[in-house]
Amino acid sequence: MNYSEIVRFHGHECPGLAIGYRMALAGLEALKCIRSKDEELVSIVENDACGVDALQCLTGSTFGKGNLIFRNYGKQVYTIYSRNSHKGVRVRFNVTTVPDEIRKDRKRFAEWILSCAAENILEVKTVDIEQPPRAKTRTSLPCAICRESVMETRIRDLDGRSVCIPCFNKESSDNG
Amino acid sequence: MNYSEIVRFHGHECPGLAIGYRMALAGLEALKCIRSKDEELVSIVENDACGVDALQCLTGSTFGKGNLIFRNYGKQVYTIYSRNSHKGVRVRFNVTTVPDEIRKDRKRFAEWILSCAAENILEVKTVDIEQPPRAKTRTSLPCAICRESVMETRIRDLDGRSVCIPCFNKESSDNG
Repeated sequence: MNYSEIVRFHGHECPGLAIGYRMALAGLEALKCIRSKDEELVSIVENDACGVDALQCLTGSTFGKGNLIFRNYGKQVYTIYSRNSHKGVRVRFNVTTVPDEIRKDRKRFAEWILSCAAENILEVKTVDIEQPPRAKTRTSLPCAICRESVMETRIRDLDGRSVCIPCFNKESSDNG
Repeated sequence: MNYSEIVRFHGHECPGLAIGYRMALAGLEALKCIRSKDEELVSIVENDACGVDALQCLTGSTFGKGNLIFRNYGKQVYTIYSRNSHKGVRVRFNVTTVPDEIRKDRKRFAEWILSCAAENILEVKTVDIEQPPRAKTRTSLPCAICRESVMETRIRDLDGRSVCIPCFNKESSDNG
């Protein structure tokens, strides 16, 4: 996906999206990888800011495919791992190198991010990480209360009945 | 985004993606809404299966935009809320109506999902929900140990020093 397709996916252009675009591209380049069709690549993201949408588009590590792992550290860091080469790379955006006058204007900031040299804003390191487990498909069971289907690993036991979490919470608060 | 663009985003075609496509489309139709450029729409998803990638593409509720809320209930349910109309709709996929012989063949299953009548597989209800809060932009501070930037809300206090979660965890385990 090219930058304009990524902007279309995200919905609008912004500095955060441009940052994620540069970070994800730099990670793929360092790994010598292309987009993940299935789960060849796994990405661990340390925030859930705009840039992750660019990462989803560029790496194919998407929320729905189980190869996007969110660690809520509030850091502008992506670690991308290739299951084929068993190599990992950590990409960090260094906001301190962005001149203050650039950061004041969001449009200019985004343009600046897209055009500056990677080494000015990014730190890219190879890292050793443990191979993340693959996403698993689970069977589903009906909740004993609402009868809706629930993935077996998310079933709760309520006095011997297998129920979904919303029904479990409702019954617990009604009786609490 | 059309179906082939969504398949490209997800990386491959599968029954789960087709299910999410039908669910998200049905939700948008019920709300009489189009894709969210910014945060007009908020989606609450009750699993992180393939279909959520179709929802991200169709509704514009994306992981990076803060208008995709994940409740890990293991249920094939999307609740989509419009900040403009203050209306919400709950869409549930009913797997029990899919004939067993269709489910055995993934390609045929996906095709069947895309072509069957919505009322055969989906339950769509309007719901009253509280308006979810908008995503907030936070300032960042440098971690006192690694010096990397951390969102202020994710800072931890380590003996009076403001540190990031990975440094906090490392120091705690080193001294534990």
